[in-house]
Amino acid sequence: MLKHNVYFDGLVQSLGYERLGQRQTIGVISPGEFHFGTDAAERVTLVSGELFVRPPGEASWQLYPAGTTFEVAGKSGFDVKALGPVAYLCEYL
Amino acid sequence: MLKHNVYFDGLVQSLGYERLGQRQTIGVISPGEFHFGTDAAERVTLVSGELFVRPPGEASWQLYPAGTTFEVAGKSGFDVKALGPVAYLCEYL
Repeated sequence: MLKHNVYFDGLVQSLGYERLGQRQTIGVISPGEFHFGTDAAERVTLVSGELFVRPPGEASWQLYPAGTTFEVAGKSGFDVKALGPVAYLCEYL
Repeated sequence: MLKHNVYFDGLVQSLGYERLGQRQTIGVISPGEFHFGTDAAERVTLVSGELFVRPPGEASWQLYPAGTTFEVAGKSGFDVKALGPVAYLCEYL
């Protein structure tokens, strides 16, 4: 079954499902700056729009355009900044 | 703002938003066969999984793997068949 997840007063929302035993979500990030904590490690692919990402413990932002992917370790966290709405795919590793 | 859309008793769900004046949704199709009507023309890109699509008026199914795109005319409709959950991006043209 699909699961609708709502974060940050609805500014970030996702739909969760399972494929081949792997949990995945697709979601949309509204314009703004947000911090995400990770439990499992994650691989995030930008589907539409582009996202600034600040990895844990780093000071500078990196830009990830549509079509690119980044990974984040588990038991960690990262900051994102979106100037327009951004659609993404998240695979839990 | 993001809009959560639910179709077919929750088997198909999407999140709608607007980018650069264009309406887009990302969504997930659960395993099954579904018919979608179109109002505006649509460009659909497969993000995860693969989808069988039967264009309006055609008898045979075509397979669209992740990373591929198809377009459907407005005021029309098309059938889809998913064997596993399928994530997609839809742009309204």
